[in-house]
Amino acid sequence: MGMRVGVIGGGQLARMMIAPAVELGVELRVLAEGEGMAAALAATAVGDYRDIDTVTAFARDVDVVTFDHEHVPQPVLRALVDGGIAVHPGPDALQFAQDKLVMRRRLAELGAPQPDWAAVASEAELRAFLDAHGGRAVVKTPRGGYDGKGVRVVSAPDEAADWFAAVDGPLLAEELVPFTRELAQQVARRASGEVAAYPVVETVQRDGVCAEVIAPAPRASERLMEAAARLGVTIAEGLGVTGMLAVELFETADERILVNELAMRPHNSGHWTQDGAVTSQFEQHLRAVLDLPLGATDPLADWAVMINILGGPADAGLTDRFASAMAEHPAARIHTYGKAPRPGRKVGHVNLTGDDLDRIVYEARAAAGFFA
Amino acid sequence: MGMRVGVIGGGQLARMMIAPAVELGVELRVLAEGEGMAAALAATAVGDYRDIDTVTAFARDVDVVTFDHEHVPQPVLRALVDGGIAVHPGPDALQFAQDKLVMRRRLAELGAPQPDWAAVASEAELRAFLDAHGGRAVVKTPRGGYDGKGVRVVSAPDEAADWFAAVDGPLLAEELVPFTRELAQQVARRASGEVAAYPVVETVQRDGVCAEVIAPAPRASERLMEAAARLGVTIAEGLGVTGMLAVELFETADERILVNELAMRPHNSGHWTQDGAVTSQFEQHLRAVLDLPLGATDPLADWAVMINILGGPADAGLTDRFASAMAEHPAARIHTYGKAPRPGRKVGHVNLTGDDLDRIVYEARAAAGFFA
Repeated sequence: MGMRVGVIGGGQLARMMIAPAVELGVELRVLAEGEGMAAALAATAVGDYRDIDTVTAFARDVDVVTFDHEHVPQPVLRALVDGGIAVHPGPDALQFAQDKLVMRRRLAELGAPQPDWAAVASEAELRAFLDAHGGRAVVKTPRGGYDGKGVRVVSAPDEAADWFAAVDGPLLAEELVPFTRELAQQVARRASGEVAAYPVVETVQRDGVCAEVIAPAPRASERLMEAAARLGVTIAEGLGVTGMLAVELFETADERILVNELAMRPHNSGHWTQDGAVTSQFEQHLRAVLDLPLGATDPLADWAVMINILGGPADAGLTDRFASAMAEHPAARIHTYGKAPRPGRKVGHVNLTGDDLDRIVYEARAAAGFFA
Repeated sequence: MGMRVGVIGGGQLARMMIAPAVELGVELRVLAEGEGMAAALAATAVGDYRDIDTVTAFARDVDVVTFDHEHVPQPVLRALVDGGIAVHPGPDALQFAQDKLVMRRRLAELGAPQPDWAAVASEAELRAFLDAHGGRAVVKTPRGGYDGKGVRVVSAPDEAADWFAAVDGPLLAEELVPFTRELAQQVARRASGEVAAYPVVETVQRDGVCAEVIAPAPRASERLMEAAARLGVTIAEGLGVTGMLAVELFETADERILVNELAMRPHNSGHWTQDGAVTSQFEQHLRAVLDLPLGATDPLADWAVMINILGGPADAGLTDRFASAMAEHPAARIHTYGKAPRPGRKVGHVNLTGDDLDRIVYEARAAAGFFA
């Protein structure tokens, strides 16, 4: 059995695969975008993930290729598969994470609950959608968005005029869901079919970026937990996802859940599993892409909370704040990404587990606050 | 604040520092004994740890030097310190781990409970010790022993004749303690003085090698737990240990504890902390040698158990057994050292946590059994 995993992309998700890879005895190789990336320790190659020759050469020496992000172009992915290389998730699955219109169509076929949506090819079509949905809508570029980029709330068609001009093909229009909160469901799936779901979590976004996660989602009924897990498994199977899948969800006042976004990789909403679950999403991803049996997803404590550390002024070194944060919060689990701080940039996170949710939220925020 | 830690020695203890180093943002550099060692991923140099020039050159680019083992000679350690390099634990502390006679004398000065012992320089002196202790004793070479090597139970002086001939200086004779079980106490200490104790654990040795650990030690009274923790702190402070200290203990029928051996580094009896405590001993060691505030030592579950994986026939690849072990035991935490299996060689371990001790012991043994 081969145990060499090649990760395309050298960001923090690849970095956080290093720890479980070392413990499992998985040989991790990373194709990084440049020198000094977050996953530099495991970087065995530096190059452009859009270049077929670069990626093919990198893939030749591993047993399976997986990803730190979903941006590897389809022709590159297809070339790998055509060359007999195991790619997880594969190109057929990844297209649903790469193009939000393709995803919406497929989720509709699967009967997955989602916001009203339409492909709008012109300002006139967007006007019709706005008229049908109370005069406001979310408009998204189908490709290339992340962390709130490529997403805009509009109340008039000309507010998307620049995108209609720049984007080749229609935009995605979605109803503005009157959600009460946001949730996320993590599911792992192996090529041979085994699936494992984590408990659904609550996510708190600020400025389009994940800020906090509470696991499991507070006040979630058993019915909700089961519905979310079932939906995650349905999507993982329906889209043929291998590895980790994150399903970002809206919850409505009447306890319905609607699919917002998908990510086919370890995801920020699953970072709590590093310290709060038997098997972290990073280890689970490695197991899944290697088609090894999945690990237990049970929580280790009643509650886990994750607070992102967003970079402040570039001249303030993160490590200088370590001693203070650690001294005040000895139970806080501090994770750093080895990235130079920039305002708003995700440079680390703090996990905390325990049985008193209010206390651990307070304490994790306080610990993360030392780095702000 | 510097965050570069240099580890002398590339074995599994250095390897298991990699995971917490990556997460904390600590730059780990390893001076390995050869190519392909367990900690190869972090190896930045290969060379002889007994050579002053090799070690000094390695140490120049780190903020603190620490160790995978206690075998670096005192002249090398002193040269580092004289060169202004931070060394943790330092040579003054390490001498107590390097020479069991020096340790016994110092523990006696500290009033630490230990077996009756004597420095015996001849077969006549050993005969006198045997006569005073019921005709049997443990004889140890003061230096160089580990995992049962350099330790012998004798009932006649000539059974140590070869050691008297080979060893420069006296041997250590110790009474055969009628212990009911063996325990181990883990303590961390920073240069600036902060200490943190883990709960005392029970260790089960087979053929002089640690086989199983249960944390905390079953049926341990609060008095015993406190006495063990206090003893660990006394020794850490009395010997000036920085980093992790493991105190191996005998427990007697009347619930006394006696010091058996010391290790000044992460130790096999503390591997359970990787999955069973808020802060693992490997992260704690990094924090301690960097003089960062120590992490919480609280257990994450009622019980944790660690079972060593000892190598079987050299031709049986470990990874082939992964799928079976994982499939049957999804909650088992499997750690491998990247070492070629040899009969009896420690090549990995399995951790398991839970609230039913009998069940997790059974399950961890079963999971480890797949690799035997």
